[in-house]
Amino acid sequence: MIIPRGFRFSAINAGVKSPEVRRTDMGLVFCEGQAVLSGVFTRNLVKAAPVVVGQELVGRGKTRAILANAGNANACTGDQGIHDARFLMETAARELGVRSDEVVPLSTGVIGVGLPVDRMASRIPALVSALGNDPEVFARSIMTTDTFPKVVSRAVGNAAVLGVAKGAGMIAPDMATTLAVVLTDAIIAKQDLDNIINKSIERTFNAITIDGDMSTNDTLLAVSSNQVAENINEVEKGIAEVIRDLALLLVRDGEGATKFVTITVAGASDDRDAKKAAMSVANSLLVKTALFGADPNWGRILAAVGYSGILFSPEDITISISGHRVVERGMESEGFSENALHALLKEREIGIDIRIGGGPGTFTVYTSDLSYDYVKINSEYRT
Amino acid sequence: MIIPRGFRFSAINAGVKSPEVRRTDMGLVFCEGQAVLSGVFTRNLVKAAPVVVGQELVGRGKTRAILANAGNANACTGDQGIHDARFLMETAARELGVRSDEVVPLSTGVIGVGLPVDRMASRIPALVSALGNDPEVFARSIMTTDTFPKVVSRAVGNAAVLGVAKGAGMIAPDMATTLAVVLTDAIIAKQDLDNIINKSIERTFNAITIDGDMSTNDTLLAVSSNQVAENINEVEKGIAEVIRDLALLLVRDGEGATKFVTITVAGASDDRDAKKAAMSVANSLLVKTALFGADPNWGRILAAVGYSGILFSPEDITISISGHRVVERGMESEGFSENALHALLKEREIGIDIRIGGGPGTFTVYTSDLSYDYVKINSEYRT
Repeated sequence: MIIPRGFRFSAINAGVKSPEVRRTDMGLVFCEGQAVLSGVFTRNLVKAAPVVVGQELVGRGKTRAILANAGNANACTGDQGIHDARFLMETAARELGVRSDEVVPLSTGVIGVGLPVDRMASRIPALVSALGNDPEVFARSIMTTDTFPKVVSRAVGNAAVLGVAKGAGMIAPDMATTLAVVLTDAIIAKQDLDNIINKSIERTFNAITIDGDMSTNDTLLAVSSNQVAENINEVEKGIAEVIRDLALLLVRDGEGATKFVTITVAGASDDRDAKKAAMSVANSLLVKTALFGADPNWGRILAAVGYSGILFSPEDITISISGHRVVERGMESEGFSENALHALLKEREIGIDIRIGGGPGTFTVYTSDLSYDYVKINSEYRT
Repeated sequence: MIIPRGFRFSAINAGVKSPEVRRTDMGLVFCEGQAVLSGVFTRNLVKAAPVVVGQELVGRGKTRAILANAGNANACTGDQGIHDARFLMETAARELGVRSDEVVPLSTGVIGVGLPVDRMASRIPALVSALGNDPEVFARSIMTTDTFPKVVSRAVGNAAVLGVAKGAGMIAPDMATTLAVVLTDAIIAKQDLDNIINKSIERTFNAITIDGDMSTNDTLLAVSSNQVAENINEVEKGIAEVIRDLALLLVRDGEGATKFVTITVAGASDDRDAKKAAMSVANSLLVKTALFGADPNWGRILAAVGYSGILFSPEDITISISGHRVVERGMESEGFSENALHALLKEREIGIDIRIGGGPGTFTVYTSDLSYDYVKINSEYRT
């Protein structure tokens, strides 16, 4: 793994959800010098306290540390939630010898319950002492229903880009959240980093869906330690690739997922329409359950495009599944074989290609199927 | 059961899905005289052949018969599908001694497969001979994954209103479709019937959701035999009640449903916003799985309102579940008891009341939970 210069990592058990929890559930990324900060946040109107605080810090664009926790989202906690987030930022800042408005909070977990700030604060000295060179310890500390830690990295000339994320699956049995942190040592201006992030998420984090639910806590932070001069286009490419890889890892580890499904819509009036149609198919419960069951039921795909809200002529539509032509001019293709399609649907990787006309719009969405395990993970009463 | 004058009913086995099927799968409603016809159809851009034909007939507003089948939706079947629908209409018309454009087709079942028109046509004489006074035989012939036939009726003075429908659950393992037929003998003009239907569905059929998927075949027909003079306001009320009862029966019999959930949003800027928020909660997989598991996870409800796309202040929101105050001013209510809520969620009937501000907008949506059985019904490979 290639690790960008200027960052250190640690994690610790802080008993965030309850004192009995034994896993690491509080993590720290420390920037040795002043770093550039960028980020994007959930568009949910109901925003967790760390999102409200984080947006303010990203606006200023400078950071020295990221303080993260799993087990409690600090969401729907009102003024107390903001106060709690700031208290932990101050505690960490004091311990690290930085300013408290240079510490960015990240939280994921149960909604509506206050953070156990005293227990957490008491562990911060040990968290700071534990700082080292392994980003995976940080990645593990923010995991929830994730089945593996998500860390990816890329060299960009002499610079490096590293990405860490936690699952787009729901936090069993609490709340869906994606948290992601992208670190680089390439020299970059705040404005450039903002632009790269905003551009990169459009066809990556904003193109994945597990179940259509949007969290109160979704956050992607990008931080540069500004140490290595590299070609900005190469840096952009590196960051974009790391973000894309993280997004795809989230889908691969979607809750209860047995399939990795790539849905491309082409020939739409514009990209926006293409995305609307692709998302409609990706979020259709009928499509997702058919994929889980390897049911060659292409009518469900066609119907989901039909109710997506975009305009098209059904008689122009063409659908291929994993290379097998299924629908031609809105009807079952002549070469369609139910057995062939059934066999293709039993694979773990499935591609759905939908052409809806002659327009220039195209978009690819990544999703998973809907299995018994999804229902199990998300229906069990919290214990 | 009160049956409006001027209608007769029958059903027969026509082996629509395959010659081996033994259940009744073709049904007929015969109007003894010229009847007034109204109807509403799926807004899916991909429309089945009977929808295309039916819309034309409803435009003319006259009918003598409804010819329905389960087992095959006659959808995505191109010009041949239209041709097949017309062929069956002509066959029935000849047998009934009416005009072919007075026979309205209704289909539900698998998509993309041509109707077995010869087999179906050969059974039409027997279907006509079987005409009698029991609407339930017709209701049974259009059932799919329904676990019970859906027939409701109401007296309106000397007149009557009768409603028949099939499930909003998906046709295992094919396509979701709602078909509904409302019959009355009250004297009514076409325009009035159109208005009543359009008004009635807004807070009934358009206020229910099982899984958010919209069929290629959804159809509600309203027919009057025009025999009994009654107060138009009373007639409207009777029709509205029958339509509402049918809609609620569909939710009660939703695929795999273990709960009947009534979600009311109040205090929105307008009814449209209230509906958007209520539908967002009703279609959230996280909410639906939590309801299935009786998980008192109110954060999922709040989050689903937050991403519904309407504007509101999260700190104004109040949520009660089955009468228990859960959220107050966007935070956990002081009197909230997780145990009390868990007990309430174990009930089969659940009410979710959400107040999002001081506006006049209000809307109630009816839905079910998401269970293992839903996944089972919709994931199994067609056999």
